[in-house]
Amino acid sequence: MKIAVLGTGVVGNAIASKLVSLGHDVKMGARDAGNEKAAAWVKGAGPHASQGTFADAAAFGELAFNCTAGVGSLAALQAAGAKNLAGKILIDVSNPLDFSKGMPPTLSVCNTDSLGEQLQRAFPETKVVKTLNTLTCTVMVNPALVAGGDHDVFVGGNDAGAKGKVTEILKGWFGWKNVIDLGDISTSRGVEMAVIFWVSLMGAQKTPMFNYKIQR
Amino acid sequence: MKIAVLGTGVVGNAIASKLVSLGHDVKMGARDAGNEKAAAWVKGAGPHASQGTFADAAAFGELAFNCTAGVGSLAALQAAGAKNLAGKILIDVSNPLDFSKGMPPTLSVCNTDSLGEQLQRAFPETKVVKTLNTLTCTVMVNPALVAGGDHDVFVGGNDAGAKGKVTEILKGWFGWKNVIDLGDISTSRGVEMAVIFWVSLMGAQKTPMFNYKIQR
Repeated sequence: MKIAVLGTGVVGNAIASKLVSLGHDVKMGARDAGNEKAAAWVKGAGPHASQGTFADAAAFGELAFNCTAGVGSLAALQAAGAKNLAGKILIDVSNPLDFSKGMPPTLSVCNTDSLGEQLQRAFPETKVVKTLNTLTCTVMVNPALVAGGDHDVFVGGNDAGAKGKVTEILKGWFGWKNVIDLGDISTSRGVEMAVIFWVSLMGAQKTPMFNYKIQR
Repeated sequence: MKIAVLGTGVVGNAIASKLVSLGHDVKMGARDAGNEKAAAWVKGAGPHASQGTFADAAAFGELAFNCTAGVGSLAALQAAGAKNLAGKILIDVSNPLDFSKGMPPTLSVCNTDSLGEQLQRAFPETKVVKTLNTLTCTVMVNPALVAGGDHDVFVGGNDAGAKGKVTEILKGWFGWKNVIDLGDISTSRGVEMAVIFWVSLMGAQKTPMFNYKIQR
C-alpha cells in the first residue's frame, strides 16, 4: 500500500520504518522536499522509502499518518493540501504539546476543543482517526515491548469504516491485541489531555516504556 | 481517628461510610449544619457519624477529605476556614468538572493550573495530597471490585510525609495494592485532565467500574 507519513521526528521515523518493514511504499513528507532528516531516513530504509513535500506525500499516500508536532499540525496539513487528503483516512498521532513554558508542558488546545477536532473541521472530506497519541513511539509499532503487549490503545473518529480500517492496521500491522473505540472525534479531547498525565507518569517512573491497561 | 469529610455527594458518602466502618469518628461537613443529605447519612451510619458545617467538620478532623464538587471546592474550603485546616492533611479527591456546557464536560481549571494547586496555594499551611480523583467512588474504597484490585491509584503533593501517610491510608484502610507517587502538587494537572479521558472510557464501556493499570 502507498502510505504518507507526515513528519520527520522520532514518531514519524518509528511509524515509517515499521510500514516499510511490512513491505509498504512510504513517502515521508516535510516542509521541504529535500529535508535532511527525511533524507537520512530514506537512505537507511531501502527501496520502498521515499521523501517529498507534505503535498507530495499526501498525494502519494492512499492513507496518511500525521506525525507532525501538534502545534504545527494544522499548518503542515494545509501545506499537504485538502485535495491531496480528500476521501482518505488521516491517522492523527499528534499531540498539541507546548514546551515553551517549561515543565510540565501545556497544550496549545484543550478542554473545549482538541487538535483532532480542529483537523477534522479543517479537512471535512478527510476521515480523521485519532489514535496512538497516548504512548511512546517505539511501543506504538511494537506493543510487545511493554508487558508482552497486554495493554490498550484507543481510536476516536466520526467515520465508523475508517475506525474499522485503522483498528485492522493497529492489530494486523502493529500487533495490538486490544483496541478500544472511544467514540467520535470529540474524544480526542480526553486522549490529548491525558498526555499531561502520561508526562507525570513518565517522570515518576523515569521511563517512557509503559502504557495503560484498562482493568474491568 | 477523627476525620472530616467535606461534601455530601456520592463520593463523600462512599468515603465517610468506609471510614466509619473502620471505626473512625467522621463528621460530614456541608454549607449548612443541618444539611439533609448529611443528616440522612448520619442516620444510617451509626454512632461514629456526625454532621456539621464545613468549619465544624474541619475543626473536628485530624485530617480532612475534600469530596466537594470541584467547581465549588475553593468556596467550601474557605468556609471550612484556613485555621481549622492548618497543619492538617487535606486529601483532595475532587475534580473541577463543569457539566453546564453539556457533554463532554469541561474543566473549570486546567492546562496551566489545576484545582489541587489552587487549593495548596489558598491554604499554604495545609498539606494537600491529590489522590483518588481518577476513578469511580465505589472503587476508591474497595479496589477489589475491579479486577481483584489489580490496578493503580496515584498521589501527588508537596509534602513527602503527608504523601506517605495518605499512601498508608490508601493501602491499609482502603485496600489499594499499588500507589504511584507522581510528584508534587503540580501533577494534579495531569490527573485532573485525565478525567476527560475517563469520561470517554466510561462512555465507550458503558460502566464506571474500571480503572487504569500502568503496565511496564
